[in-house]
Amino acid sequence: MKRSNRLVYLSNFFLENPWEHSQLPQFVDSLNTTKASISEDLDIVDTVFRNEGLGYLKRVTGAAGGVKYIPEFSLEKSNQFIQELCDMLEDPVRILPGGYLYMSDILGDPRKVREIGRVFASKFSRLNIDVVVTVATKGIPLAYATASFLNVPVVIVRRDPKVTEGSSVSINYVSGSSRKIQTMVLPKRSLQEGANVCIIDDFMKAGGTITGMINLLGEFDANVKAIGVLAEADDEEEERVVDSYTSLVKISNVDIKHKQIDVNPGNFSNEI
Amino acid sequence: MKRSNRLVYLSNFFLENPWEHSQLPQFVDSLNTTKASISEDLDIVDTVFRNEGLGYLKRVTGAAGGVKYIPEFSLEKSNQFIQELCDMLEDPVRILPGGYLYMSDILGDPRKVREIGRVFASKFSRLNIDVVVTVATKGIPLAYATASFLNVPVVIVRRDPKVTEGSSVSINYVSGSSRKIQTMVLPKRSLQEGANVCIIDDFMKAGGTITGMINLLGEFDANVKAIGVLAEADDEEEERVVDSYTSLVKISNVDIKHKQIDVNPGNFSNEI
Repeated sequence: MKRSNRLVYLSNFFLENPWEHSQLPQFVDSLNTTKASISEDLDIVDTVFRNEGLGYLKRVTGAAGGVKYIPEFSLEKSNQFIQELCDMLEDPVRILPGGYLYMSDILGDPRKVREIGRVFASKFSRLNIDVVVTVATKGIPLAYATASFLNVPVVIVRRDPKVTEGSSVSINYVSGSSRKIQTMVLPKRSLQEGANVCIIDDFMKAGGTITGMINLLGEFDANVKAIGVLAEADDEEEERVVDSYTSLVKISNVDIKHKQIDVNPGNFSNEI
Repeated sequence: MKRSNRLVYLSNFFLENPWEHSQLPQFVDSLNTTKASISEDLDIVDTVFRNEGLGYLKRVTGAAGGVKYIPEFSLEKSNQFIQELCDMLEDPVRILPGGYLYMSDILGDPRKVREIGRVFASKFSRLNIDVVVTVATKGIPLAYATASFLNVPVVIVRRDPKVTEGSSVSINYVSGSSRKIQTMVLPKRSLQEGANVCIIDDFMKAGGTITGMINLLGEFDANVKAIGVLAEADDEEEERVVDSYTSLVKISNVDIKHKQIDVNPGNFSNEI
């Protein structure tokens, strides 16, 4: 294959297979070329990926050597995207009864969802995450997007057990905002003991749901290495029960009467 | 930018932006090159995409001309992937009480989910789909994967209304397998009248859930142009209430006692 064709092939390969370790000889064979040529190809792909803020190719030399694509979005691109999210969310038409915010259009846009996942995955890329955990329903697409860039599976905590998942572990917890007792269930087969977990959800108010997830994950001896929420609501009446998390945007001063709302970048943009 | 770098840039651009119409001058500007060079670049990208069964670049000449990437997985690749799914699912360890099949590991793997979405999107790519609709919970990742390749939004039908979505339309329906009356809800804001809809779900037995969705979508005057299910169960006791759908795999002869099960390609592979 010619260099120009190889570059298109390799770009697609790396973008589709983040974190996947490949040995150079396998490219030499499948692309019918030399190791030196592949090595030059990889330099070109790496340069463009870096320039475009898409991440980089990690090369390991030696006998077990090879290459893998680490999809790390640049901080600049992440912050730019977060600002766009803020601008979109600040529209007062989004205010719903109870001080909630209509976000279904953003959560329903696969491209926006993918960008959100890319931002989280970039932030958590060095934490050796084994699995992304979320709770049904709205966090699911964000969890998949994040997991696809980390190249790990997704496990979904449910609020009701399902016959199609076999035996399961469940806990009860108190929802922070509604003060109601709720149940969370995770199938036994779904998580290995001692796994490094990243929790992803769409929205956090007092943090009751996330605390519930942390407790449930404790039953599996999982290590919660990171918590990512798309939006946190600034709620002065309640004390937050979760203190270590990453939020992309922060919603505050929701004034239903005057149709006003403030949406600012969350703590993602603070901690560098 | 040099050709080699441009090819990496363009490959990424098209893969990230399927169905997006781009005019050549925008590439000429951003890549600082000539129209003739871009045109040659596009030929190269198109050739490799076709050879790898990833789809093709559609060129339109003239004043409003430009290019877009149509992600059509080759039929050969689709059928090969479906066969892999069958092999994975045929493991008797997956049999659960009630004749259900454990599929959470496959549905939890973002890469498998993406491939399933790619197969559906390729099949439905010429139907002018405006939106992908699914019902919570397990169909959600498949719906997003499909929608990302069609470049359209996802709308999620819920079984319980949520305060965070505003006013909604609901219907009651009879679940085919459990014969229970259930509710389905769709927020009013979520779907425009007359939209061309593709329904995606993970599993279909008698088809009650999908019939419920069709009825609910009728309230929005939506046109159901396609129905895609990952797995259909061959259930001889019940007559199927939905007759026009595309299934990737078909599960039959589930024998809990003898731990046996047959999983074969679904009707996707029949209709060419």
